[in-house]
Amino acid sequence: MPLIQISQTPGLTDEQKAAVIAEVTRAYAKASGKSESAVWVTVTDIPREAWGVGGVPLSQG
Amino acid sequence: MPLIQISQTPGLTDEQKAAVIAEVTRAYAKASGKSESAVWVTVTDIPREAWGVGGVPLSQG
Amino acid sequence: MPLIQISQTPGLTDEQKAAVIAEVTRAYAKASGKSESAVWVTVTDIPREAWGVGGVPLSQG
Amino acid sequence: MPLIQISQTPGLTDEQKAAVIAEVTRAYAKASGKSESAVWVTVTDIPREAWGVGGVPLSQG
Amino acid sequence: MPLIQISQTPGLTDEQKAAVIAEVTRAYAKASGKSESAVWVTVTDIPREAWGVGGVPLSQG
Amino acid sequence: MPLIQISQTPGLTDEQKAAVIAEVTRAYAKASGKSESAVWVTVTDIPREAWGVGGVPLSQG
Repeated sequence: MPLIQISQTPGLTDEQKAAVIAEVTRAYAKASGKSESAVWVTVTDIPREAWGVGGVPLSQG
Repeated sequence: MPLIQISQTPGLTDEQKAAVIAEVTRAYAKASGKSESAVWVTVTDIPREAWGVGGVPLSQG
Repeated sequence: MPLIQISQTPGLTDEQKAAVIAEVTRAYAKASGKSESAVWVTVTDIPREAWGVGGVPLSQG
Repeated sequence: MPLIQISQTPGLTDEQKAAVIAEVTRAYAKASGKSESAVWVTVTDIPREAWGVGGVPLSQG
Repeated sequence: MPLIQISQTPGLTDEQKAAVIAEVTRAYAKASGKSESAVWVTVTDIPREAWGVGGVPLSQG
Repeated sequence: MPLIQISQTPGLTDEQKAAVIAEVTRAYAKASGKSESAVWVTVTDIPREAWGVGGVPLSQG
C-alpha cells in the first residue's frame, strides 16, 4: 500500500527514472519492513520555471 | 469542497475524461451525501515509464 | 494503477468512507474501462479551519 | 520547510509564474511568521479538459 | 479553480492559518490576475518527525 | 529540490520513519545523481479505513 510520489526538476532519462523507482522502492521496504511488491512510486517532472525556492524560480536562481 | 485528485497512466480521450469526471463526482456525492456542485476533480496522466509498482516501471512490467 | 486521492472536510463515518471508496472505484472503472481491482483510493479529512475558499476558512464561512 | 503546491489551469506566462512564486512566498512568510528562504512553491498546469467542477470539465463549462 | 495545497510543520494557531489563507489567496490572485473567489487553499500540518531534509527528520535537525 | 511525499498506513515508529527518511533520501540521491542535502521527504499516515484497494478499505480486506 505505500505510495511514494516524487516531484523533481526535469533531466533524468527513463533509465534513471527506472533506477530511482527500483532503489527508492527497495530502500523504503528495507527501512519499513514492508513488502516491495505493494509499493507504488510515481515520478513527476516540474519545470524549473515552475519551482520556486525562497520566492525565486529555480530557472532564475 | 471535496477535492478528488486522480492520477492515471495516459490513454483516456477527453471524452472519457469527461465521463470519469461526471461519474466520479456523482458517485462521491451519492455515497457521501454531499452536493455534486461543490466537488472538484482533477485528472493527471503519468507516463508508464514514471510509474513503478513493486520497483518496476509499468513500461517494463 | 489509477490513484484517486480524495480530500474532504471531516464528518463522514467509516461506513460512509467505505461507501465512498466502493462507489468512486466502481464509477471510475466504469467510465474509464479500467479494472476496479487496480484502483487505489485514499480519503483525507482536512479541518474546516484549514480549508479556505475565496480567502476565508470554511469554519468562518 | 513550508511546501506550497499550486495547481491551476494553463495560461500564465513564465513571468507571471515567477510573480506568483514571489508573491505567494512573501504572503505566506508574512502571515505565518516563517522565513521566506525555507519556502518551496511548485506550480502545476492542469488542462481544462482534465479539471471538473460539479461534474463538468472546465472546457465544457 | 486555482488550488493551493500548503504543507507545513505544526505550530500555527487557527487565527494564523486564517491569515495564511487570506494572504496567500490575495497574493495569488494579484500575481495571476485571477479572481480570489475561485481560489481553494488547504493547510496540512506534518509532524517534524515525519518531515526530512537531507535525510534527517526536522525533529532531529 | 527533489520532493518525496510518502503515504502509508499507520504503524511505523518515529525511529522507523527516521530510517525511511534516511534510506529513501540516500537511494534517491544515488539513483538520480542528485545531492542528498536538497531532498525533502514527508511521511503521511492514512488510516486503513480511509485507504481502499479494488473498492474495499484495507480495514475490511
